Amino acid sequence: MMNVVVWNENRHEQTNPKVREVYPEGIHGAIAGFLEQEFDVKTATLDEPEHGLTDEVLQETDVLVWWGHKAHDEVKDEIVEKVHKRVLEGMGLVVLHSGHFSKIFKKLMGTTCDLKWREADEKERLWVVAPSHPITDGIGEYIELEKEEMYGEHFDIPAPDELIFTSWFEGGEVFRSGCTYQRGNGRIFYFRPGHETYPTYYHPDIQRVIENGVNWVKPVDRKRPVYGNAKPIETIQPK
Amino acid sequence: MMNVVVWNENRHEQTNPKVREVYPEGIHGAIAGFLEQEFDVKTATLDEPEHGLTDEVLQETDVLVWWGHKAHDEVKDEIVEKVHKRVLEGMGLVVLHSGHFSKIFKKLMGTTCDLKWREADEKERLWVVAPSHPITDGIGEYIELEKEEMYGEHFDIPAPDELIFTSWFEGGEVFRSGCTYQRGNGRIFYFRPGHETYPTYYHPDIQRVIENGVNWVKPVDRKRPVYGNAKPIETIQPK
Amino acid sequence: MMNVVVWNENRHEQTNPKVREVYPEGIHGAIAGFLEQEFDVKTATLDEPEHGLTDEVLQETDVLVWWGHKAHDEVKDEIVEKVHKRVLEGMGLVVLHSGHFSKIFKKLMGTTCDLKWREADEKERLWVVAPSHPITDGIGEYIELEKEEMYGEHFDIPAPDELIFTSWFEGGEVFRSGCTYQRGNGRIFYFRPGHETYPTYYHPDIQRVIENGVNWVKPVDRKRPVYGNAKPIETIQPK
Amino acid sequence: MMNVVVWNENRHEQTNPKVREVYPEGIHGAIAGFLEQEFDVKTATLDEPEHGLTDEVLQETDVLVWWGHKAHDEVKDEIVEKVHKRVLEGMGLVVLHSGHFSKIFKKLMGTTCDLKWREADEKERLWVVAPSHPITDGIGEYIELEKEEMYGEHFDIPAPDELIFTSWFEGGEVFRSGCTYQRGNGRIFYFRPGHETYPTYYHPDIQRVIENGVNWVKPVDRKRPVYGNAKPIETIQPK
Repeated sequence: MMNVVVWNENRHEQTNPKVREVYPEGIHGAIAGFLEQEFDVKTATLDEPEHGLTDEVLQETDVLVWWGHKAHDEVKDEIVEKVHKRVLEGMGLVVLHSGHFSKIFKKLMGTTCDLKWREADEKERLWVVAPSHPITDGIGEYIELEKEEMYGEHFDIPAPDELIFTSWFEGGEVFRSGCTYQRGNGRIFYFRPGHETYPTYYHPDIQRVIENGVNWVKPVDRKRPVYGNAKPIETIQPK
Repeated sequence: MMNVVVWNENRHEQTNPKVREVYPEGIHGAIAGFLEQEFDVKTATLDEPEHGLTDEVLQETDVLVWWGHKAHDEVKDEIVEKVHKRVLEGMGLVVLHSGHFSKIFKKLMGTTCDLKWREADEKERLWVVAPSHPITDGIGEYIELEKEEMYGEHFDIPAPDELIFTSWFEGGEVFRSGCTYQRGNGRIFYFRPGHETYPTYYHPDIQRVIENGVNWVKPVDRKRPVYGNAKPIETIQPK
Repeated sequence: MMNVVVWNENRHEQTNPKVREVYPEGIHGAIAGFLEQEFDVKTATLDEPEHGLTDEVLQETDVLVWWGHKAHDEVKDEIVEKVHKRVLEGMGLVVLHSGHFSKIFKKLMGTTCDLKWREADEKERLWVVAPSHPITDGIGEYIELEKEEMYGEHFDIPAPDELIFTSWFEGGEVFRSGCTYQRGNGRIFYFRPGHETYPTYYHPDIQRVIENGVNWVKPVDRKRPVYGNAKPIETIQPK
Repeated sequence: MMNVVVWNENRHEQTNPKVREVYPEGIHGAIAGFLEQEFDVKTATLDEPEHGLTDEVLQETDVLVWWGHKAHDEVKDEIVEKVHKRVLEGMGLVVLHSGHFSKIFKKLMGTTCDLKWREADEKERLWVVAPSHPITDGIGEYIELEKEEMYGEHFDIPAPDELIFTSWFEGGEVFRSGCTYQRGNGRIFYFRPGHETYPTYYHPDIQRVIENGVNWVKPVDRKRPVYGNAKPIETIQPK
């Protein structure tokens, strides 16, 4: 059974009663809640020692789910380095919503990961554009969310290896809202929805996509390739 | 359990004693032999009625594995159309070796799928270039085949959605020898090795890659999207 | 100076007074009109002998622009074959709007190229998602069209090599409306807008994108690669 | 006319007589020498103040060509940040050979950019795998270099947006040796050959590819997109 760690900044929950009302167990608690049916799930949060991501935890983690927003800067660079190394070694990474601006996502992408945004209780409709992709398994033509924060293009990311969802927003924007990447031995899935004041993570289709995403990023059974100086396999002719 | 059909032209086996010696059960028999450990496998061949690919068979097939070479032209267009339709509906397709020139592969690719080739008992080394991909699960840095037919660039295919293996050939060429594509609701994996006079399909790593490939192309649980005239979901303002 | 041929079905213009009013010189005439400032432009239409695409014309054409809709089936298969061959040889192809269902585009894509559609005088906004791409040169963050036909996902195409524009539609859909592909030695640009009853091809930004697209698909100076049996470049050891 | 800056570490030239003999004007001098026929070219080197990359220089640079090897660590982080920002703003970047390990390339890629390597006077043959790409304009089926350093897979980079060349090495390896990327408003071309002790940059085909690469990464005429909080374009209904 796969080991999944759901990491959450867990700050809005402490300071905003509205968020606490929507997610009384924290966003991490809500996500862990539905992932537990299929995976061995732990949670970790910013204010734990080493943000709950000790070497032991990281070593045993198959897939890390990441939600952060207002305290990206408080995540220590050394922890980011360790997570980065583990992703390249094969640990899967699912980055949710405002995690687009996390240090780890920006480091893996190499771009600013900036975007347009707006909080206006507006409708989002996520259209499936890759119907052959396992991340869309069990999902209809689109997922509709009555109220969400808007994220709009241009989203400053590398063109995704695979574009899975594209969002329509009531206010007139579009967004590449489901994107996969492969980096080193690791796999990454970015999924847009999940503003802290909306009950998005209770939506069955959103839960299904996250479950599918966790399965999609699961580590492949192989070591990192050998890098560095290499002896020839074939005879090289003197010239 | 997934239903896999291994389709083989099965002509070299009838006319070339060397091939019959290497593959006494036919190439389809050899491939079915190792896939049976994991999947529910049937075989089908060119000279059966409807090439063994009746509507019933196609409807029940999750993944079709295709080997053909000298008789591509004898595959009936109507069967090709049916296979094409089934791939777009979600049936997985694994195309092996000289299947690059099959009608179904050319139709799905939209290009000539031509290449350089040579039969000279030469060494092939397939390097993994996508170490995070499930198709490489359990495979080392490369697979070495002592004797194989050479296929060389330029390989006239669309740039693959994912490039998994690149081959080095003793005679001086390279080749994109493991390629994935997504078309409609279906997934396709092209894998180069497997000339009929060599025991390539008994190689454990080659078997592993084909097994991994069958798993990778497995159908997603979703209907074809709805196409055609569509009513608006939102109100359109008169202008 | 590049030789551009603008091909138009030119049927709506004969039967629908509204279309004739919007495009008195035909859609081909309107497109040729603005391309002439930069290229050597000819036009060709369905009802000309060989649809105006004789061997001589095709041989001299650097870039072919294609608009068709209601008479795709009347385009002769032999002409489609010739155009296909020329694209693989390097002739650029710009496919506009309802050309998504043309024989040549479907043959090059290998899929149905189907989509959702609706004629409801609705607003379209094409967002730039690839701001580094030459096809977006001189274009702002988006192009807004007050009234257009809707095309909605799922668009049954291979994932584009590059996704340039994504459309937002008033009625609630999104669409990958600017897509590039490379096939053989040739380059292809699909661009969505241009329903026959709207003055879309007079819009300066739409004209700019089509000009940029023609430049982007321009042929590279190289022969088709050599295919077929190949002598070894290096010595192959006896085994 | 485009402004091109050729940046070179310029250290091997100072310490290794063999390198000085091959490149008496420095590697930057050799590259600037052939680019001058088409572009307005300046050079910059590590030991100049701010490595020759002042704000003024960077602001006026359309395309930056980068060669570095043994002193990557001496490139100041603040200069790397400025170059990174300029690439995302649209400045083209051509990274050559051992520049794969430069800070700027690693930062843009988000991976280690590690690889296998060997100095053994061995033959390299770069095969064109994207014959429709402008970077291959005027180049035959392959470029052969009698003696080069070997770089072998796995090359720890994101899958390139476009794979242009794949190298065959005498010692048995392959390598993705011509790769394009788009990041923000900028375009990047990585090209493998050019070990300091070989006269690679005098080879006419290598020069042609670099010229083509400089043209391919040239900036698009557009501003950076607007990021951050955005007002709705359409009316949002109260819910």
